[in-house]
Order: sequence, then C-alpha cells, then structure tokens
Amino acid sequence: MGAVAYVNGSYRALRDATVNVEDRGYQFGDGIYEVVFVHQGRLIDAERHLSRLARSLERIGLTLDRTPQAWRIIIAEVLRRNRITTGLVYIQVTRGVAPRDHAFPVNARPAVVITARHKPAPPRDLDAWAVAAICLPDDRWAHCDIKSINLLPNVLAKQKARAAGAFEAILYDADGMVTEGASSSVWIVDAAGRLTTRPFDRQVLPGCTRAALSEALGTELREVAFSVDELRAAREVFITSATSFVKPVVRLDGAMVGDGKAGPVARRLMGVYWEGK
Amino acid sequence: MGAVAYVNGSYRALRDATVNVEDRGYQFGDGIYEVVFVHQGRLIDAERHLSRLARSLERIGLTLDRTPQAWRIIIAEVLRRNRITTGLVYIQVTRGVAPRDHAFPVNARPAVVITARHKPAPPRDLDAWAVAAICLPDDRWAHCDIKSINLLPNVLAKQKARAAGAFEAILYDADGMVTEGASSSVWIVDAAGRLTTRPFDRQVLPGCTRAALSEALGTELREVAFSVDELRAAREVFITSATSFVKPVVRLDGAMVGDGKAGPVARRLMGVYWEGK
Repeated sequence: MGAVAYVNGSYRALRDATVNVEDRGYQFGDGIYEVVFVHQGRLIDAERHLSRLARSLERIGLTLDRTPQAWRIIIAEVLRRNRITTGLVYIQVTRGVAPRDHAFPVNARPAVVITARHKPAPPRDLDAWAVAAICLPDDRWAHCDIKSINLLPNVLAKQKARAAGAFEAILYDADGMVTEGASSSVWIVDAAGRLTTRPFDRQVLPGCTRAALSEALGTELREVAFSVDELRAAREVFITSATSFVKPVVRLDGAMVGDGKAGPVARRLMGVYWEGK
Repeated sequence: MGAVAYVNGSYRALRDATVNVEDRGYQFGDGIYEVVFVHQGRLIDAERHLSRLARSLERIGLTLDRTPQAWRIIIAEVLRRNRITTGLVYIQVTRGVAPRDHAFPVNARPAVVITARHKPAPPRDLDAWAVAAICLPDDRWAHCDIKSINLLPNVLAKQKARAAGAFEAILYDADGMVTEGASSSVWIVDAAGRLTTRPFDRQVLPGCTRAALSEALGTELREVAFSVDELRAAREVFITSATSFVKPVVRLDGAMVGDGKAGPVARRLMGVYWEGK
C-alpha cells in the first residue's frame, strides 16, 4: 500500500495529493509547519508541537479554528492509513488559494496538508547517531521564532553541509554568536564543563525537544548565547530536534570536537529525554 | 473561457492546475519566480526578466536547461490560450517533487508553472496612479537579490501597508537606510533635486524596470543609498516595478510627500520608460 496524505479534509494517495498552483504556500511561502515524531504509536511532545503550531499561525495572522484534540484525531487517522507506529508526521498550514497578490486574501480558506512516513527510533548506541557539522553565517530573516515554510536559506545551508560531508550547518550571526542549526537547536558543554544553550529569542525557533530537556534539567542548564569560538572550544557539542533527538556533533568544519566521540552529557540527555515519553 | 496555466509541460484549466504536496516549492519555498508585463502582445523588458530568471536559478543551484527562446515560446502559448494581449505573466520554477529533506534531491525534475492574467496598462494620468506607502524595518534574509518565492516577510509587510490604507511598504535596514519596497524599487528626488536610487547589492532585487530606466537616464541618475530621513524630506518619491512601472508615492506614513501630488520627474520617467517599448 502506498503512502496516504491528508489534504484539506480528504485522504489521498500521496502521488495524487496535490494543491492548486495558486496556493499561497506555493507562490509566497505563506504558511507554517510542524514535524512530530511518533514512537510506538504515541506522538512525542505533541502538546508542545501543537501549541507552537498555534503560535506560528497567530504570528503570521492566519486564523484556523482547530483544537489540539481535532489535530490529534486527524493525525491519528493519517498514521492509521499509513500503518505507521514509529516515524514522522509532517503538518503544514498555508493561507490557501487566491489570485496572486501579496496582501492577505479576503475569502481564502486555509489549506492543511498532513503526511507521515516510517522512520526508526534513534539507536541506543549514540556513537552510531553522531554526525559532523559545518559553521555558516546565519542568512535568515528576523523572525526565525516563526516555524515558517520560507526555508530556502535552510535548504542552501543544509546543501552546503552535505557537500562538505556533514549533516548539519550550525549558523552564527553577525556578532559571531551561534543562533541554531539549519534544522536543530545547538548545545555545548563548554570548556568549563557548563551545559549551555541559547535562550529563546526572535533569532531561533523555540525547539520542542530543547524545551522538554530544559524543563527536565532545571538549573543545570545555562541559557546563555555562546560564540562560534566557544563552540569550537567546547568539550561536547550536540544538536536537538524532533527527529535528531539528542545528536552528538563530533566534527566541526573537519576538526574533532573533544575526543571526536559522542560525549557523556549527550548520552545522559538522550536518556533524560526518553524518560517518561 | 476560464484561465489556463502551464504546469510542467501541459496546459490545464487554472482551477485544475496543481502540484504535488511534496513539491519543494510548497514545503521549502525552494524556488524562484518572475513577473513580466505584456503590452499589446509584447513582453516588456523580456530579455532582462529572462536573464534575471536564469541568474536566480543559478544563485540557488537549480539547473534548468531552457533558452530564452524556449521560454518565449511557452509564454506566448500561455498568453494565446488565455487570450491576453495586455496583462501579466507569472513564471515560477521550483526544485521539483521529492520526499521531504532539506538538502537538494538527487533525481527531482524542476517544476515550472506559468500563469497569466489580464491587467490594464497604467493610465496616462499619473495622479490616478499615485499611492500611499508606509515605512517598515526590513526583516528579510541576506540575499534579497535572489527573486525567491520565500515571500512571507513581503506578504506581512504588504498586509501592514494595506491595513494602514497604503499600497506599498518601504523597507529600511538596521542603519535606517532604505533598501526597497516590499515589491518594488524605491526612488527619490531629494531635497537638493537629485534623482537618486539605491545601487544594486545583496539587500535589493536587481529591478528590471529600474535597470531599464537607469540605462536610459545615464549620469542624471545618482545610484547612492539614502536614509528614511532623506526619503521623508524628498521632493518626490516613487516606486518602480514590472507592474507599477513608475508609481508616485504621495503619502508616507500619512504625511504628504512634497505637495502631495504626482511630481514632474515621475511623470517624465513614465514617458522615458515607455519610449521604444
């Protein structure tokens, strides 16, 4: 059986799941999205993701009356039709179809697309989960706290990473301070051994995995911006996201991070994250 | 007869013109576009638009072998099927359909969509063409010289303009220097009477209408960045684009520009632009 997508109220084979060329998501990137991991049939951090979805919609002035409970019902149906118990759910909402004009259309109905796919849970062995990263200037817009589908800068950064044999691009602003990864939050255990990640502001997405860990860690976590120099000098570097969970970064621009292996803090945090999930 | 769109090699009724939900234009804004005005059957500044299209593609690493002549043949067919002699052509190219992953897909075929619609040529009477504008911080990314479909910041700025009863949002950077309009280039006749527009750099789109005028004007045009203060103190303000041509801005954040009427320089430049088109 092939993959199934939810598109504006109906369930369709993914290959036939289409939107009009005048959907504002296609012509303007006028929409937002979420990615949620599903583990053994349960949505991980669903409440955080659905609340961030609502927040993104509100930030771009897109009104869609749908309760978290309504989202959960549709998502469950998408998972059921795709026979997925462990994998990803992708949710996208755009401002709908209207004759092309920048300002908001008056009568367009928001468009909702949900897809899902199989993806194994991360391995217990964090060494097998570790990756390389590169550092790049953060070229993005001024509101990266909105999870919008304007992802061309992220696409170009990820492509540069791949071309360099790396998984992630870690971005830094004009002052040399790390913002986040092209699709993840960035953490370090700094030279003094302090567990550090950047506080939430307009330059970074409020990561759900990062927020869950932050809550679990309490005062152990230092929420302070750090520089690329501090990143390079760190004992440990790792990234977090709904699909990376806690992913050690063991090479940075070709150089080893620490001893070049997954570190003890990343290992512990992966355990902390899964506790009670 | 309803509108017709070109989608990946076929011509379809606009209402049935669709792309897959996994088109990277929809999920990542991974694409670029052009808008060309057609006047009495002729494409205005076609060479500049098609060359900018090729440049945008190259800048985002999207390979599409299509000569300007091939573009012209398809565009002519879209116009013919839509029975349009005066109006707009919209051209969009994305990186095509692929399972969602930020980095470039290996085998995706670029997607091409072309639509067209009727739009009258601008009136001879520039007073009827004049508009209000507001000034807003430029929130966009660092490569606005690429005409990408990542237009959410432009959408939000245009919506703010509309909510304020204005047509355009004029954007300024962190140093208070004007970059461009949300969908236009910005010109002033400054307090000293000098015709001024910003030089091309990565913060602004290389406007085709602006380039054509620049070529026609020669040394009369001063290509120098100017501030919002200079904008507010200008004798004349006007914007240029493929659809606005030369459009006087006669109110800025509610205050009159000059005497609040279309000025003589804008009037003359509209004539200069149409000469020989």
